[in-house]
Amino acid sequence: MNRTRTSIVDIARAAGVSKSTVSLVLQGSPLVNEKTREKVNALISDLGYVYNRGAANLRQAKSKIVGIVVNDLTNSFFAELAVGMDMVVQSAGYVQFLAHSGESVDRQREVIASMRENGIAGLILSPARGTQANDIKPLADSGIPVVVVVRNLPGAKVSTLLSDNYAGAKAAVRHLIGLGHRRIAFMGGFLDTAVFADRVRGYRDALTEAGIPPNGDFIIHSAPSRAGGVAVVERMMVFAERPTAGLCFNDAVAFGVCDGLRANNIEPGKGFGVIGFDDVIEAKTAVPALTTVSVDPQGMGQRAAQLLLKQINAGQIDQESIVTSVRLVVRQSCGTPVKQPEEMA
Amino acid sequence: MNRTRTSIVDIARAAGVSKSTVSLVLQGSPLVNEKTREKVNALISDLGYVYNRGAANLRQAKSKIVGIVVNDLTNSFFAELAVGMDMVVQSAGYVQFLAHSGESVDRQREVIASMRENGIAGLILSPARGTQANDIKPLADSGIPVVVVVRNLPGAKVSTLLSDNYAGAKAAVRHLIGLGHRRIAFMGGFLDTAVFADRVRGYRDALTEAGIPPNGDFIIHSAPSRAGGVAVVERMMVFAERPTAGLCFNDAVAFGVCDGLRANNIEPGKGFGVIGFDDVIEAKTAVPALTTVSVDPQGMGQRAAQLLLKQINAGQIDQESIVTSVRLVVRQSCGTPVKQPEEMA
Repeated sequence: MNRTRTSIVDIARAAGVSKSTVSLVLQGSPLVNEKTREKVNALISDLGYVYNRGAANLRQAKSKIVGIVVNDLTNSFFAELAVGMDMVVQSAGYVQFLAHSGESVDRQREVIASMRENGIAGLILSPARGTQANDIKPLADSGIPVVVVVRNLPGAKVSTLLSDNYAGAKAAVRHLIGLGHRRIAFMGGFLDTAVFADRVRGYRDALTEAGIPPNGDFIIHSAPSRAGGVAVVERMMVFAERPTAGLCFNDAVAFGVCDGLRANNIEPGKGFGVIGFDDVIEAKTAVPALTTVSVDPQGMGQRAAQLLLKQINAGQIDQESIVTSVRLVVRQSCGTPVKQPEEMA
Repeated sequence: MNRTRTSIVDIARAAGVSKSTVSLVLQGSPLVNEKTREKVNALISDLGYVYNRGAANLRQAKSKIVGIVVNDLTNSFFAELAVGMDMVVQSAGYVQFLAHSGESVDRQREVIASMRENGIAGLILSPARGTQANDIKPLADSGIPVVVVVRNLPGAKVSTLLSDNYAGAKAAVRHLIGLGHRRIAFMGGFLDTAVFADRVRGYRDALTEAGIPPNGDFIIHSAPSRAGGVAVVERMMVFAERPTAGLCFNDAVAFGVCDGLRANNIEPGKGFGVIGFDDVIEAKTAVPALTTVSVDPQGMGQRAAQLLLKQINAGQIDQESIVTSVRLVVRQSCGTPVKQPEEMA
């Protein structure tokens, strides 16, 4: 097939106006009268002229492209986060490079370098596990706005948007204690992430304030996935004194915990209380419907994109750190209050 | 913050060579001797020079950018498909615009227009529901390679990569018949898609060849989501003579069907046989583990990206239609063979 591209000259000739007039129409200039504008626009549409944004970006030294790198698109939380960003970015007339690092820091570095070469105006990064502040220093130093989401990067001089992991975990564990649970596990998640540390801190503090000494054995880490949740239950089953409920690192782990409990003939919400973290779309329709800490991933993605676009448009970078509030959504996965041994006697 | 960008001139000055020499090094030319090349590359790294790919693309009139538009990133199938594409695209030294149409044809049109303005070398499209061949005609006519995946667009003159929906559905229903089921439902999916039509055709043909007259009431459509699966069960529960098993439109519907059955105190795999379609990651770890038609979404994404890159590199478009084979993966969600009333007597 032959590539013939309609040019501004073709439009100008067909409209009987100058090349500069067509150019002014394309830029939305008020200097062109209404009749001419309509005629030119009609021809642009009929002849299939495509504005060369790449050339325009070079002329203006400012692109309409945003980079987004997420660590794991196959986890619904991050897919919903990306969808939220997509909404805001597209509506603002930008287009996004969107890449998946698969939790690989090397991959992440390559992808960011490639996006830079292609002239992004800004970057939103949900960092791969093990990312260091130094990894994004060259980008931040170059003056390109960067917003880090979900996972903190201590020491990085960029804006961050995180959810209140500490308060969310604390509220969830208080809820379990209120239902009568005393042996409460923290289930799943990678040990070496700031998010894990914050959530475990909330978990411990809620236990301590209720006079329950935290038991280190009850903090069972795993991959933050459905398969990880199944594995956590397998490890829990060998305990002599098993927990009666657990706060899961995220909803994916919580669904896996429900699967693992069923595989051991324990009905989630009846024999064991389960709380998730994130509130992904399926938390509501799952059986039992999942009690979870709602982070609103789409809303978080939208806010991150708004923050980035604000910095791009302002042309200067004000480092902002935003912590979004979370709330516990009580559904069916913790069932009814647990009777304590003394009450049953 | 001040944006100062290291230029070729800065590198040339620091290396004590001409601007053209630096340029040759950047292009990987064999004309530069090894020692000079090393010196220049070291300075490029030290001074933080970033190659302006946008300008290079304009000079070569060939970009290293691929566009990917998927209809629903929040469905694991499409997220895994996108991850497969991402792997191939990035490894080939390309970068992708990746957008989510949210099943909106209007949104899809805007996104594709925006990607074209930004100079994509090719496009992979998993079309939004209701997309017509005409919607992508301007793009195909312009000579930009297009690969349509997952959903067919009859009449569109582009390459397509589809899974063998007919054969997969037929194999699944034959499996249910082999287990002794006679009242088999087709559960979920939007009526107005080619994928739905192909899968229902396989379902009907398997029933007919076994001498079971297809019952129109047993084809219950819904949104192709987990919530859709729950709704399908609710509608099925009012039937006087209920199906004993169902082939679901996809895995998301199948998980919803399991949820809906449990909400009605029916254990999936025991009181009712469930088969999914796709084989998403969580099909394996779900309880019961899901018997499903494996489509291998990541592999399919990889193949689609390879097909597109081949066409981009060849510089000419050979319209190819590839149908990828599928296979039934038997796990636990269909339980053990069903006894027929006559056998039970």
